[in-house]
Amino acid sequence: MENVSKIWLGPLPADSPYVKPFRLYYVQNGKEKNWDLLKVHDSVAIILYNTTRQKLVLVRQFRPAVYHGILTSAEGNFNEVDLTKYPPSIGVTLELCAGIVDKEKSWAEIAREEVLEECGYDVSVERIEEVMVYRSGVGSSGAKQTMYYCEVTDADKATTGGGVEDEIIEVVELSLPEAQRMIQKGAVNNSPPSCLMGLMWFFANRAPSASA
Amino acid sequence: MENVSKIWLGPLPADSPYVKPFRLYYVQNGKEKNWDLLKVHDSVAIILYNTTRQKLVLVRQFRPAVYHGILTSAEGNFNEVDLTKYPPSIGVTLELCAGIVDKEKSWAEIAREEVLEECGYDVSVERIEEVMVYRSGVGSSGAKQTMYYCEVTDADKATTGGGVEDEIIEVVELSLPEAQRMIQKGAVNNSPPSCLMGLMWFFANRAPSASA
Repeated sequence: MENVSKIWLGPLPADSPYVKPFRLYYVQNGKEKNWDLLKVHDSVAIILYNTTRQKLVLVRQFRPAVYHGILTSAEGNFNEVDLTKYPPSIGVTLELCAGIVDKEKSWAEIAREEVLEECGYDVSVERIEEVMVYRSGVGSSGAKQTMYYCEVTDADKATTGGGVEDEIIEVVELSLPEAQRMIQKGAVNNSPPSCLMGLMWFFANRAPSASA
Repeated sequence: MENVSKIWLGPLPADSPYVKPFRLYYVQNGKEKNWDLLKVHDSVAIILYNTTRQKLVLVRQFRPAVYHGILTSAEGNFNEVDLTKYPPSIGVTLELCAGIVDKEKSWAEIAREEVLEECGYDVSVERIEEVMVYRSGVGSSGAKQTMYYCEVTDADKATTGGGVEDEIIEVVELSLPEAQRMIQKGAVNNSPPSCLMGLMWFFANRAPSASA
């Protein structure tokens, strides 16, 4: 699904709207220290459960940062990439529906929009329940993410989803046993910890009991 | 515990060993796109359970990136900070014992060293069990983190922990009910999702049953 035909690397432009790196200086116990970090957008993620189908709804997409992380762990620095040696598919992740907070709207409203844009379910904001707030990337970015839970039905399905503009996002439905396997040792979906945490939260708090 | 007396911000030096920002270019479905990202170190994290005390062992520390994230969400850009308005304590996190992979050693060995350096328990590498591997920061860094589980006893305690060199790390013991509260809505510990996920994994897979 990723259909990526060429990959190359350049320096970060000074005017990047997405990644703003800094060095923060501080004095701790009388001693000057510093820490390199970057400002990234805060974000929302949504655990989406289709009760009609009893399926969790996730998204697959090509993630440049993951591809870059895998490649540089293996090769160190690079310029242009040999895609036969490192196929773009290694950078595809399986994640919760999510999005950055870059609009003057409530976070729950942004979550509602992401559910529609990425996964095609049109729900009211009242149906989106806040689960947890945490800081991701405590070592490098410290951005805030709020996780939500939303139950949907087939009747809420308004579009096929897939993202807006140039986004290429595949909607993936997982049965509960499939999702259980994702949170066991050896799962290889390049999933972020927030996704794994969301699935664990679902099984601990919302999943229909095994006997249902 | 943080004892921070001054905080200010500067540009990221080009030779930062910790944060290396890039713009990755790629062609997807015939269209050129780009993504801003950074290379950060891969890392390990350890769920540490003291069976003598039936306590989970975590660490508290001042995290510059979290402090910066909270401050810029509230204020936008800044130079020097008014610490009376934004006390450094808002940047203190409660996390699993963890560390970056920056040595030519096995990941489990690095985990073993972090358990000793940060928390003071001296265990053999055979006692450190791999739990899960995932990609953190899929939007910006894509670094790999491996999570481990290790049971310790009071007899393994060799030092007070607290980190090496200039690190200021407080070892925190949590009872199981206290840890349960951390993974419920409204917890305010600035904890990263990997920590919350690790606690959920512990309660689902290793915690003594409630009746024990």
